[in-house]
Amino acid sequence: MDTKLPIALSNRHIHLSQDDLNILFGENYELTKTKDLSQPGQFACEEKVDIVGPKGTINGVRVLGPIRSNTQVEISVSDAFKLGVKPVIRNSGDIKGTPGVKVVGPKGEVNLEEGTIVAARHIHMHTIDGEKFGVKDGDIVKVKIEGMRSVVFENVLVRVKDNFALEMHVDIEEGNAAGVKNGDLVELIK
Amino acid sequence: MDTKLPIALSNRHIHLSQDDLNILFGENYELTKTKDLSQPGQFACEEKVDIVGPKGTINGVRVLGPIRSNTQVEISVSDAFKLGVKPVIRNSGDIKGTPGVKVVGPKGEVNLEEGTIVAARHIHMHTIDGEKFGVKDGDIVKVKIEGMRSVVFENVLVRVKDNFALEMHVDIEEGNAAGVKNGDLVELIK
Repeated sequence: MDTKLPIALSNRHIHLSQDDLNILFGENYELTKTKDLSQPGQFACEEKVDIVGPKGTINGVRVLGPIRSNTQVEISVSDAFKLGVKPVIRNSGDIKGTPGVKVVGPKGEVNLEEGTIVAARHIHMHTIDGEKFGVKDGDIVKVKIEGMRSVVFENVLVRVKDNFALEMHVDIEEGNAAGVKNGDLVELIK
Repeated sequence: MDTKLPIALSNRHIHLSQDDLNILFGENYELTKTKDLSQPGQFACEEKVDIVGPKGTINGVRVLGPIRSNTQVEISVSDAFKLGVKPVIRNSGDIKGTPGVKVVGPKGEVNLEEGTIVAARHIHMHTIDGEKFGVKDGDIVKVKIEGMRSVVFENVLVRVKDNFALEMHVDIEEGNAAGVKNGDLVELIK
């Protein structure tokens, strides 16, 4: 049974709907890929936006592609305090009732009513990995990280799909708190 | 046997030697207390300094009193990356071989040869608490935090002294990664 998998630290970023992309960057705008991400089909873009909350602004937040059905802003707890919005831990896509922010692009701005989340840590894995690790989509597992800042992350959601690549995703604060960097191996505990 | 204790999140700060205080703020300068901290005799000061590293500067870093024998800068891993110094996890006081930074005050500046640490998480407790928790100075324990971001912090140093108040100290990134705020109760596990 496999137990080790790589970890990746996600910095703040935004996913955009086509409607919001049109407003922020201009009608029929298309994203400019700069780099493929580890999850198949996902990519970092040249485009950046500013995120404006009631108490502060974070400039230069990276857009990730491709376009999604709903705009979603993913920030850290520290970012939420800086913006002046409540840090709400959610799984990606589960944005109902989460805080809104203003998003400012070069051609326009969008006032989101909701969609600002602190992403809950999770593991992506391919169906074949699911079999190797003995877990299925939706399982909750623990992940142990060794070292000076050794931690066990509990309450980690496993997401299994045929287009996922094996990787645990945490945000920068979680990664730093555990003393890990991109690509370090961590241990799945059931 | 007690198991619960309060947690506190430490923001970046600096402790100064009298020599460095003199250079930064003027000869025979005395710190101005704004607030007592939870540990007896420790206090936050009105004074702030700028910390300059090879890659960046962090302005307005709070001075904590009283004066210590050696100047010590305590930052997060993110701060270390921003400054461009290696993030080195150390216990307070154990600064040998740690990175140096430049400290800038209103009256002068100091080039530290060492003393920049990311503080290792730890628990302060009074001798009486040590007996209640069944631990002694220098023990390494685990601490469990419940909630959406439930974690177990391993490798937690216990410091027992007659002038310590019961409290676990983590940095902002560790606290946010665990979804806790100042004063939340956490569980000591032996």
